[in-house]
Amino acid sequence: MIPVGCEPSAFDNGRLGRVARTSTLLTQGTAMTDDTAGTALQLRSLIRADGELELSLQRVPIPEPGPEEVVVRIEATPINPSDLGLLFGAADLSTMQLSGSATQPILTARIPDKLIKAMAGRVGQSLPVGNEGAGVVVKAGASAAAQALLGKTVALIGGAMYSQFRCIAANQCLLLPPDATPADGASCFVNPLTALGMVETMRREGHSALVNTAAASNLGQMLNRLCLKDGIALVNIVRKAEQETLLRQQGASLVCNVSSPNFLTELTDALIASGATIAFDAIGGGKLAGQILSCMEVAINRKATEYSRYGSATHKQVYLYGMLDSGPTELNRNFGMAWGMGGWLLFPFLQKIGSSAAQQLRERVAAELKTTFASHYTRTVSLAQALSPEAIAVYGVRATGAKVLINPSLA
Amino acid sequence: MIPVGCEPSAFDNGRLGRVARTSTLLTQGTAMTDDTAGTALQLRSLIRADGELELSLQRVPIPEPGPEEVVVRIEATPINPSDLGLLFGAADLSTMQLSGSATQPILTARIPDKLIKAMAGRVGQSLPVGNEGAGVVVKAGASAAAQALLGKTVALIGGAMYSQFRCIAANQCLLLPPDATPADGASCFVNPLTALGMVETMRREGHSALVNTAAASNLGQMLNRLCLKDGIALVNIVRKAEQETLLRQQGASLVCNVSSPNFLTELTDALIASGATIAFDAIGGGKLAGQILSCMEVAINRKATEYSRYGSATHKQVYLYGMLDSGPTELNRNFGMAWGMGGWLLFPFLQKIGSSAAQQLRERVAAELKTTFASHYTRTVSLAQALSPEAIAVYGVRATGAKVLINPSLA
Repeated sequence: MIPVGCEPSAFDNGRLGRVARTSTLLTQGTAMTDDTAGTALQLRSLIRADGELELSLQRVPIPEPGPEEVVVRIEATPINPSDLGLLFGAADLSTMQLSGSATQPILTARIPDKLIKAMAGRVGQSLPVGNEGAGVVVKAGASAAAQALLGKTVALIGGAMYSQFRCIAANQCLLLPPDATPADGASCFVNPLTALGMVETMRREGHSALVNTAAASNLGQMLNRLCLKDGIALVNIVRKAEQETLLRQQGASLVCNVSSPNFLTELTDALIASGATIAFDAIGGGKLAGQILSCMEVAINRKATEYSRYGSATHKQVYLYGMLDSGPTELNRNFGMAWGMGGWLLFPFLQKIGSSAAQQLRERVAAELKTTFASHYTRTVSLAQALSPEAIAVYGVRATGAKVLINPSLA
Repeated sequence: MIPVGCEPSAFDNGRLGRVARTSTLLTQGTAMTDDTAGTALQLRSLIRADGELELSLQRVPIPEPGPEEVVVRIEATPINPSDLGLLFGAADLSTMQLSGSATQPILTARIPDKLIKAMAGRVGQSLPVGNEGAGVVVKAGASAAAQALLGKTVALIGGAMYSQFRCIAANQCLLLPPDATPADGASCFVNPLTALGMVETMRREGHSALVNTAAASNLGQMLNRLCLKDGIALVNIVRKAEQETLLRQQGASLVCNVSSPNFLTELTDALIASGATIAFDAIGGGKLAGQILSCMEVAINRKATEYSRYGSATHKQVYLYGMLDSGPTELNRNFGMAWGMGGWLLFPFLQKIGSSAAQQLRERVAAELKTTFASHYTRTVSLAQALSPEAIAVYGVRATGAKVLINPSLA
């Protein structure tokens, strides 16, 4: 059961009216008649020592904001690829079993024995999930900054978003434009800031064009829009003909399909055309990252006039930002010595560039929320529905384009 | 045949006397009686389009120095692992064939078909070889800097050292201490600056201890001496029990043997003891580089109090500086997202730190030439002997500890 003030059926007549009423209800402190009074649902992921993953909806107290904090009723929170690791751990989803009640389902699955060791750091901890989301500020602390947000629609990041209510520092909220819904702002951070972060990394490390893999993903399409808008050459790597078509329809000129028999030649040509010497790879496993480095080296050497046994002096970089293929990464190292590979994560990147630079990126996201940085969802589900095997079959397979939005305020 | 002035038999009575006489002879321009007058031998490596590698000794004119240049009679030049790539390309050394004369032998070998493509950049070019060496300045340009070196023993770097004479800018010579022979100074640059460069890279990238593989090599032993002297914790990775013994006898306390059944546990313990989060790997291929990252992550997480699905926030770095194993590098990526891997080369590193910092490193090498940075050789050979299958069986197999010195002034 969810708190009265959050019943969506009662508040379907426009954003501001709904917000005001809810806010009032909650700030007055409603006297509930059952033992769920003052509590709300939060999705939790727990891995037991015996290797069982358990996803459940726990009742937790609705938080009280401190002076500088606000409480946001989360109405839209996406299931990003970056959420799946915390959500499912290393569980084998073919072993899923559903139990519990319709409103508080429990989903279990087995972690394969050989993968349990890698999960040791989280065994026994009931962990909240959900990197980002958006909603309406329904309680605010005493400070002016917090009070100013009361009733406003904001986007937020910081984990535990698969919750009906989330308490957060007021200065961490991104105020959305007046015409934006929580669904518009739900994916305000991870994908938009990742796309901007890739371009920013490219610039800061001295490259002028870039490569992205899994390029037909929501993130990939967004990066394509961003690069088109900013006039940056982008080499899009996809694995299916329909993804190639999709990106070309969206204006991409350099699209390479790994399924093509001439993939390496086509990639080399695209690297020559673009001059790209940095790549962002969402796949991680297999040979692709190394192939990108090799083709970059071939592309660079097309212009070389002198032999160097150490390869070109031009630094070639691949960052792995995902692991759609969790198998080993294999590098054939036929790309000289001027190369680098590493992990790329949004939060350490934002920390590195500092709060002022990060704030500029955030402001650009807000300004282009419905254009460059728009996200599209396959379906919207409640917290309980998010634990159904049927929904997991959509969002758990990491299929390009199938993105699910949770609305925790749905019954 | 080698020029008269360079016959070593005529000048075996002490450095300075020998130098003065040779210098005089050469600067006067000796009138030779055969068609080799004014020429000297230079080792060349040529890969033909049909996949044949040819090593030969070519007669080239003895260079005339420009005003700021000197000509050095090379008397000691090492065959470093870093020379083997240019020397042999991708040739299969089991196909070696010797022809030519005793003084100008020609050695041929086949490049396997599948590796010819990688050699395309150098096909048809007769390339001089030899990164570094030392010898006596026998001709000097008009400038004061050049004249000051006349008769002096200097060390130099810059390629083409497998030559009887090498012309070079005076300001690129490292003047050796008066009591140092060319053999003492032959390996002044590559190994000493690489060892110093690794420690400098460690410091500049924010690490406090380091790992080295192939740690019983000449370079590895030097790095061990350097770290002992500077009080830096070094994890030495070797592959044989006798190498472990050798390093321990030289004072190393952290030595891990990949052949041990408990290698990964022992490496993890050494990483905990040292706190090393950066490694330099000479192997390149196989799983070792990835295993080092994995063990670093385990070592770091021993102290972790909170689970992070992205792994520890501590950056872990492996630089590949050699390729003793030219097979693919395999990374299992069970070490979180805060990691990097890349190529590490001495010259780009020196360029990056700038000439003033590089000069400081060079001065330290000169000061500790016979202690920290002393090199040891298995044997000394002439240029012609360097092309014998028997010598190649020693230096071509990249066996730890078997280092060969060429003295091009030997008949």
